[in-house]
Amino acid sequence: MANRPGDGTRLDPWYGSYAERTHGLKVSETRALFAVANRPEVVSLAGGMPFLDALPMDLIAKVTADLIATEGAVALQYGGGQGHPRLRAQITEVMEQESIQAHPDDVVVTTGSQQAIDLVTRIFIDPGDVILAESPSYVGALSAFKSYQAWVEHIPMDADGLIPEALRQTIKRLRKAGKRIKFLYTIPCFHNPAGVSLSLERRAEVLDICRSAGVLVVEDNPYGMLAFDGSVLPAIRSMDQDGIIYLGSFSKTLAPGYRTGWALAPHAVREKLVLASEAAILCPSHVAQLSIAAYLENCDWLGQINVYRQIYRERCDAMTTSLAEHMAECSWTNPRGGFYTWVTVPEGINTKAMLPRATTELVAYVSGVAFFADGQGSRQMRLSFCYPTPERIREGVRRLSGVLARETELVALFGPQGDGAGEAVRNPAPDIT
Amino acid sequence: MANRPGDGTRLDPWYGSYAERTHGLKVSETRALFAVANRPEVVSLAGGMPFLDALPMDLIAKVTADLIATEGAVALQYGGGQGHPRLRAQITEVMEQESIQAHPDDVVVTTGSQQAIDLVTRIFIDPGDVILAESPSYVGALSAFKSYQAWVEHIPMDADGLIPEALRQTIKRLRKAGKRIKFLYTIPCFHNPAGVSLSLERRAEVLDICRSAGVLVVEDNPYGMLAFDGSVLPAIRSMDQDGIIYLGSFSKTLAPGYRTGWALAPHAVREKLVLASEAAILCPSHVAQLSIAAYLENCDWLGQINVYRQIYRERCDAMTTSLAEHMAECSWTNPRGGFYTWVTVPEGINTKAMLPRATTELVAYVSGVAFFADGQGSRQMRLSFCYPTPERIREGVRRLSGVLARETELVALFGPQGDGAGEAVRNPAPDIT
Repeated sequence: MANRPGDGTRLDPWYGSYAERTHGLKVSETRALFAVANRPEVVSLAGGMPFLDALPMDLIAKVTADLIATEGAVALQYGGGQGHPRLRAQITEVMEQESIQAHPDDVVVTTGSQQAIDLVTRIFIDPGDVILAESPSYVGALSAFKSYQAWVEHIPMDADGLIPEALRQTIKRLRKAGKRIKFLYTIPCFHNPAGVSLSLERRAEVLDICRSAGVLVVEDNPYGMLAFDGSVLPAIRSMDQDGIIYLGSFSKTLAPGYRTGWALAPHAVREKLVLASEAAILCPSHVAQLSIAAYLENCDWLGQINVYRQIYRERCDAMTTSLAEHMAECSWTNPRGGFYTWVTVPEGINTKAMLPRATTELVAYVSGVAFFADGQGSRQMRLSFCYPTPERIREGVRRLSGVLARETELVALFGPQGDGAGEAVRNPAPDIT
Repeated sequence: MANRPGDGTRLDPWYGSYAERTHGLKVSETRALFAVANRPEVVSLAGGMPFLDALPMDLIAKVTADLIATEGAVALQYGGGQGHPRLRAQITEVMEQESIQAHPDDVVVTTGSQQAIDLVTRIFIDPGDVILAESPSYVGALSAFKSYQAWVEHIPMDADGLIPEALRQTIKRLRKAGKRIKFLYTIPCFHNPAGVSLSLERRAEVLDICRSAGVLVVEDNPYGMLAFDGSVLPAIRSMDQDGIIYLGSFSKTLAPGYRTGWALAPHAVREKLVLASEAAILCPSHVAQLSIAAYLENCDWLGQINVYRQIYRERCDAMTTSLAEHMAECSWTNPRGGFYTWVTVPEGINTKAMLPRATTELVAYVSGVAFFADGQGSRQMRLSFCYPTPERIREGVRRLSGVLARETELVALFGPQGDGAGEAVRNPAPDIT
């Protein structure tokens, strides 16, 4: 073979061998952020990392050590593909907080809820099938959808979340065009990245529309319990069980390093998910599952969620107050929980083009384009308030406002700054606020 | 929708919505074995579970607790999609034992090596593409291959592993038929399930054949360091780096509960694997990776592998001695390492049909049919000697010989016992011994 890596060329001798689906894989907008976020001089408003310093580490260390010392030969062994029965039972208790009644038999433990998204897509999507998703939607889900060659159709949102009438019309239009719609992917609580929640009335309406149309609902709810005021909205899954796959995660209520999430699915679908998961990873990590089981048994996990809520509320306040003070020319959503606010910048500013300049001035965010499958989002950005302290958040917004001011001058002098793609500017995302 | 799960019917309202690939998902032959193996009265010669009682649990508990207490906010956080740099560097040191020279940049950490198999298949296989695999091959790999609608072509083995001439002829025949061959999947050391190893001379020959034909080699080597006499064969990857993806795992040399394995891949392929893994799981478990890193740093991991080797050698001896004593009418492979021996039973006996009767008599194995994509294997079975004690192994073989004797009587009286499928009997797998 010519052009081996060892020859110092970056050409790929296996290029002609890849599957169709592989050609769509692109480096995600968030990849570089993990690196940037780790540079201490940068205020990162980019990543969705929970603030783990708030965890009782000594207690978790003790509980984990006890687990390994007393049950190590089980905890470090292979387990079943569906997940450990002890943890699945506890997961049903966790979901009771969101008014969900479920049986442990219908829970599938996954390697983070990302794997649940991947598995759902794997079992339902043939190339060209349609997935409905909010406009914007979670970047990780969009990557998974793309890797199975799905067509993502975005549905507009407003301050109350997904707009039911838009959902109804989109389904009608796509059906008329002969498209196969497989499911609606929705993040009803403290939306990533939009920061808004689907109102209670709309939950019933969205469910009704999907039920009537025979469209499965995939409800992704990692932030549902992180309401700042402690008021947990009933999950859509609490209103129906046959037409919904509910996805949950311990990444935000405990810690993401365990990579432990779950899917709660109708019986027959659950079986397919388990089979697909066995083909993908054999079984989820036993030691991660049993560590979490021991944490839930021995620690005040609801109290810990309250600790997180208070921290994130304070940080969200710091962010929205700073935005009002320094970036009044922008608009933003007002989160009542979760990790994110969604900011719309003045016309002419391109958040993707601006990002390298922001990083130079030691502040990072995620450009809105990451959250669309169709090139929208160049006037939006996602700001996260979960990880930096309130002081750092205020400093970050100050820096960002400076970057924005200089960008505005540039636009006034030279006209709008494209990102090279162009289409984003022609098809602007709606301002959700 | 009619026929909801709640109606008490087992019909699936979403049956018409599944992807093409989903219809091929079947319950694996090994699924039920985890359940059976856990019943204490059954001697399970079925599962491939390492004997974890041999681990220094108190030391591992301490090392893990120290990690969480001192680095918890990092260990429990998200990490990069490729895996933690510290562990990737250690993995290159582990692979030096198999004469592999590699750079940490080319290592991708995965959720067990099963995920590595899944990712390789995901990035290379379009429906109908051909994967070459030994005859028999690892059941988990076959599941992954099937889930991407690959066509698996089996290549015969003998006591020295894969037969190079058969490989050459198969490639020629398939190419002539216009098939797209994507890769050879091979387990060169202490093969699962065959128990044999690819000889050193054949490694070079197999590599040469694949290189000439432009066929990628996927070398799956979880058992390579578990040679009973401590002599570790050089991996195929030690002979070439551009045409090989090497898969490794901590499941057999440490413990499977961490679900931590890896792929070592040519540069460009490595990048595709990382992207595919990010879409599938975002990132591998940080706490699992750093727990292993701490174990490798603080514990005598090579000494531990020696402990495992001695345990498995003793158990393998117990098994082959018992087989010679009680089941002389069968033939079997003589493993020099690893977990398994591959047994061929007398003509007329169907190991799949016999399995329920064996379980009734409190002994379990895996029927050979699990290890073929094409219905072969009904005269074979895989016996594992990794988990039960030597006494239990001897008892298990005694029980199995009784089951076999009664089965032989049945065959003499009523003729061969089919398993309902029939084809297995018509297309018998070769006796590898």
